[in-house]
Amino acid sequence: MAAPNSSESTPCALVARIELAYDGTDFHGWQIQPGRVRTVQGELVAALERLVPLSGLPPGAGRTDAGVHARGQVCSVPLADAALLPRIQRALPHMMPDDVAIRSVAGAPPDFHARFGARGRHYVYRFTTERDPFLRRNHLRIDPRTDVGAMATACEPLMGDHDCTSLCRTASLEPGRTLCRIRRAGLHWDGTVGYLEIEADRFLHSMVRIVVGTLLEVGAGRRPVDTFREVLAARDRRTAGGTAPPHGLCLERVDYDEPPPAATEG
Amino acid sequence: MAAPNSSESTPCALVARIELAYDGTDFHGWQIQPGRVRTVQGELVAALERLVPLSGLPPGAGRTDAGVHARGQVCSVPLADAALLPRIQRALPHMMPDDVAIRSVAGAPPDFHARFGARGRHYVYRFTTERDPFLRRNHLRIDPRTDVGAMATACEPLMGDHDCTSLCRTASLEPGRTLCRIRRAGLHWDGTVGYLEIEADRFLHSMVRIVVGTLLEVGAGRRPVDTFREVLAARDRRTAGGTAPPHGLCLERVDYDEPPPAATEG
Repeated sequence: MAAPNSSESTPCALVARIELAYDGTDFHGWQIQPGRVRTVQGELVAALERLVPLSGLPPGAGRTDAGVHARGQVCSVPLADAALLPRIQRALPHMMPDDVAIRSVAGAPPDFHARFGARGRHYVYRFTTERDPFLRRNHLRIDPRTDVGAMATACEPLMGDHDCTSLCRTASLEPGRTLCRIRRAGLHWDGTVGYLEIEADRFLHSMVRIVVGTLLEVGAGRRPVDTFREVLAARDRRTAGGTAPPHGLCLERVDYDEPPPAATEG
Repeated sequence: MAAPNSSESTPCALVARIELAYDGTDFHGWQIQPGRVRTVQGELVAALERLVPLSGLPPGAGRTDAGVHARGQVCSVPLADAALLPRIQRALPHMMPDDVAIRSVAGAPPDFHARFGARGRHYVYRFTTERDPFLRRNHLRIDPRTDVGAMATACEPLMGDHDCTSLCRTASLEPGRTLCRIRRAGLHWDGTVGYLEIEADRFLHSMVRIVVGTLLEVGAGRRPVDTFREVLAARDRRTAGGTAPPHGLCLERVDYDEPPPAATEG
């Protein structure tokens, strides 16, 4: 999709590294699509095109699906001229609709790529046991009788290096690209609200939502707490639970090898 | 509007005391209106009518304006037969749209009236200095350079018994009914977010929003920190600041003389 940064037609002097947050409720996901559907990348490109020449679609670290939110999505925009960066920094934050916020715009080396350079992605999936009008847009409401202790225990076998074929939307499975290093998977609960925090080097399509759908079956007593051992070993999507709705999910942060550049805040 | 509870045509055996929360964004306020506009009271009446005979419009403790939220609105529904209460308790919570939640339905004495019986109303007005897509529906975004220390100090003269004519929307002013006992008025701040907490026996129309509009002028350095002494003494709306937008405001709680009834939770 995006032209490689090294494309000879547009030599890249500097990459604009853009961090952004969005309420995914009214978007058909991150990725620009044919037709007139509203996407975050589409809004971003529409604004950037008015500021600088673009050599392709700016990649995002996480290709969030329709309804999924982000607090720390990262996107990279190769620039032919370093002098274009301040223009983006000044103008871009004021050009976004209400449901998108530019958190920072910083200069990164010419080889910086938001997607291929990412070393870790942090997702959070939020729950509430109450019917709360102020949480309904980014928390999944679950039965108050759910056994959240069992759900917390069930997360443990997720940690480590795994073939995650069973946790990938079947239509999106790319054989040979199913290994994930899960560094953190924990459930935190406080009264009537809670969240799953999960971090990995990479995620397969719908992976967190399938993890959540499986956990909820544990919480309802319909699966044993060690279910993920069997599910992961099976390498078969049908052994996992359903796919939880998108609105509880949020891409919180993306990690890169290099320390964050000395940010000129947007 | 509502028929008195003691109306002879419908003797009242018991009053259903309903506590509810709502995201006011998509409502034209609490109060039912002519025409097809969407109101919280309208949604509530539409559901209640399917459950029990209504003798009038159920009054709410606070007549919140368009765009204003509530976490603890209270409303009273006189019932001719105490046996109707369980029906409301069972069914009503499941009959509301996503942006309204029934927090509890309890029985109250026949003379309980949500509006006239209220002794204290707690409002909160929320602020953020950041462009945050997750706060935009119920926080007012303000300039990060705002002097919130000055705003906090400016709240102090509000406490006490005052003629609040200057803090009432002119068109709604009822001479002779302008005295308010303000028991609490404080600004709390934590990093990039903050809120004004204000409690009084009663509030005049747009009162909290006019207080906030005036405070913001203090925070911008355009008014002295003791401005409310002069504003209150003047008894003239023109001496106060502008009316702040509705979406930062939320009716948090209503107090009554009697202790909350032994609630049968809805």
